Amino acid sequence: MNPCSIPTPQQDMEGDGRWNSIHNRFLSDAKGKDADVIFIGDSILQALEHTEVWNQWFAPLHCLNFSIHKDQTQNVLGRIKNGEWDHVDPKVIVVHVGTNNVENTAEEICEGIIEIIKTIREKHPSAYIVLPSLLPRGQYPNGLRDKNSKINRLLHEKVSNINKVEMVLIDKGFVQSDGTISHHDMHDYLLPSNAACRKAFEPIYDLLQQIWSEGEPEKDLTPSE
Amino acid sequence: MNPCSIPTPQQDMEGDGRWNSIHNRFLSDAKGKDADVIFIGDSILQALEHTEVWNQWFAPLHCLNFSIHKDQTQNVLGRIKNGEWDHVDPKVIVVHVGTNNVENTAEEICEGIIEIIKTIREKHPSAYIVLPSLLPRGQYPNGLRDKNSKINRLLHEKVSNINKVEMVLIDKGFVQSDGTISHHDMHDYLLPSNAACRKAFEPIYDLLQQIWSEGEPEKDLTPSE
Ligand SMILES: [Ca+2]
Repeated sequence: MNPCSIPTPQQDMEGDGRWNSIHNRFLSDAKGKDADVIFIGDSILQALEHTEVWNQWFAPLHCLNFSIHKDQTQNVLGRIKNGEWDHVDPKVIVVHVGTNNVENTAEEICEGIIEIIKTIREKHPSAYIVLPSLLPRGQYPNGLRDKNSKINRLLHEKVSNINKVEMVLIDKGFVQSDGTISHHDMHDYLLPSNAACRKAFEPIYDLLQQIWSEGEPEKDLTPSE
Repeated sequence: MNPCSIPTPQQDMEGDGRWNSIHNRFLSDAKGKDADVIFIGDSILQALEHTEVWNQWFAPLHCLNFSIHKDQTQNVLGRIKNGEWDHVDPKVIVVHVGTNNVENTAEEICEGIIEIIKTIREKHPSAYIVLPSLLPRGQYPNGLRDKNSKINRLLHEKVSNINKVEMVLIDKGFVQSDGTISHHDMHDYLLPSNAACRKAFEPIYDLLQQIWSEGEPEKDLTPSE
């Protein structure tokens, strides 16, 4: 059985129960909230929430961010299956996870992401699912960077014919011509800086706006307004 | 032998060599830089560098920040011994490390920090060493939180009589009356938010300013000014 597709809490390696605290907060946070967009995933989206870009672009769109540092596909799957936002009715769900599955193959990770998409689809049949591609990582070329590229290719093939699932390539422009990633773009060679988030997540922002305008047909029916 | 006091690179658990990339960048960054203050340590100080507080208070004081997510005492010790800022002549060095030594005892960790202080003293005999106390962690009371308190007590005893070493208590106000830490202060129950950094690091900022004024005795000699 593929470990990436089995809903699992993140292991409390350090012993202060922080993952569980965060998951429980998300469970209660989502109740009574009127979120149009949900971001769910790993460190990359979690870091995004602490940038100017988030405050400027995403917060005003009524976005909630349910992302946890170090989460792997099976952890995100576990949180969704455990009802993290059963009480929310989002129009769009943005998912970025897989880069932390360092011990799994690209195929396993891709399957894990597909399982997340299926689970979201069951719970929110009419929501758009947006998949920013996995970002490259490490200053120099390395196996994890290659694997993330492969996951992006595999995932793109799998989802391209699924209705209301859009994969958006956000990973271009990070790797320079000499193969390195600059610390200006990723200070720790994993998390994008504010400036890099602005470049990388602009297509996501554009897509959200496009879904907004297409997603409000009642306005088209009142041309006099 | 105490593992906290043996200079060691952070293990490349994920396999993309990011710790080494960051250490090497610090090695080359420090050359030719005229830093008056060096921050060195772990995730807490690393997160500080990405707050408004850093830009407002610390960046203008010519601070360099050599902190790496997840670093333990032995990793910081290794970086210093490997010459990370041999070419810099700072007036003040701010050290915060130990909360990631989850597998070690308070006594071992305290010894590791003392070893860091000794090493800094050898390399920079006239620099002030400032030790912000370790912050509490976890939403609920837990063993790591207790251990950090104990490290703070032990360290305070050990350094209180050392000249030009100042321990500053920055850990008050995080734990609420019911024993919990709010996600407003620490979104992941480990890293302080911008607002919490403002409260916690104000005494550090005050001390830096005090060292500044005391460190320029020539001004006291010109009372007419
Ligand atoms: Ca599609």
